[in-house]
Amino acid sequence: MKYLHTMVRVTDLEQSLHFYRDLLGLQELRRKDNERGRFTLVFLAAPGNPEAQVELTYNWDLEAYTMGRAFGHLAYEVDDLYAVCAKLQAGGVTINRPPRDGHMAFVRSPDDVSIELLQKGASLPPAEPWASMPNTGAW
Amino acid sequence: MKYLHTMVRVTDLEQSLHFYRDLLGLQELRRKDNERGRFTLVFLAAPGNPEAQVELTYNWDLEAYTMGRAFGHLAYEVDDLYAVCAKLQAGGVTINRPPRDGHMAFVRSPDDVSIELLQKGASLPPAEPWASMPNTGAW
Repeated sequence: MKYLHTMVRVTDLEQSLHFYRDLLGLQELRRKDNERGRFTLVFLAAPGNPEAQVELTYNWDLEAYTMGRAFGHLAYEVDDLYAVCAKLQAGGVTINRPPRDGHMAFVRSPDDVSIELLQKGASLPPAEPWASMPNTGAW
Repeated sequence: MKYLHTMVRVTDLEQSLHFYRDLLGLQELRRKDNERGRFTLVFLAAPGNPEAQVELTYNWDLEAYTMGRAFGHLAYEVDDLYAVCAKLQAGGVTINRPPRDGHMAFVRSPDDVSIELLQKGASLPPAEPWASMPNTGAW
């Protein structure tokens, strides 16, 4: 038995790819346009870990998606938590839970999917601007 | 960069472990009780694929969780789709999307998390009771 993916629905595919691929650093592995069903599926995964994927479902006919409380977050381990957060912030993403401890951060996708980022190995030494940055919103 | 887990909140930990562990077949890897935060975390994964986990968050003070539309499902590949569905059904789980095609099925957790089950390799030959079983609800 094997984990394949977590699927999330997205309202704007380009905006979502900018977040998951360009800013967060996942790689697009495959894409499937379904004309009859009027949807596009895009599968992404962390570089070097292609088997555990996230599936973005983009329905061509716009729906407004709500994020219930039952689903919590997707979690990824990263090599340099500060570098990932800096890149996300430079791209306009709010760092909801800054990595004050050098260990953990939370951000949200354009559709409010909560993403947990964990530093690989030992925590990084506390560093600005993160050490004194307050929380923003919920995650 | 590496995928770690998908977190979902559960309202009844024992009921959820019965579903994810006893019926679906995931293995419990670790558990953490946090008395101060009044929550329990349980990490599970498919046997033989321990690195891609699902994290069940059980808050001791009961909340009612809603399942929005933004989160879609968790997907697992299984060795024998019919055997997994039969076990789930015998355990009282509705097979929302029966594996009529020998390839794909959907069920829901006690908290309405949609779970996609995909047959490993080639589809199984069509077989009853699945081949003629209608869909139930949504997934």
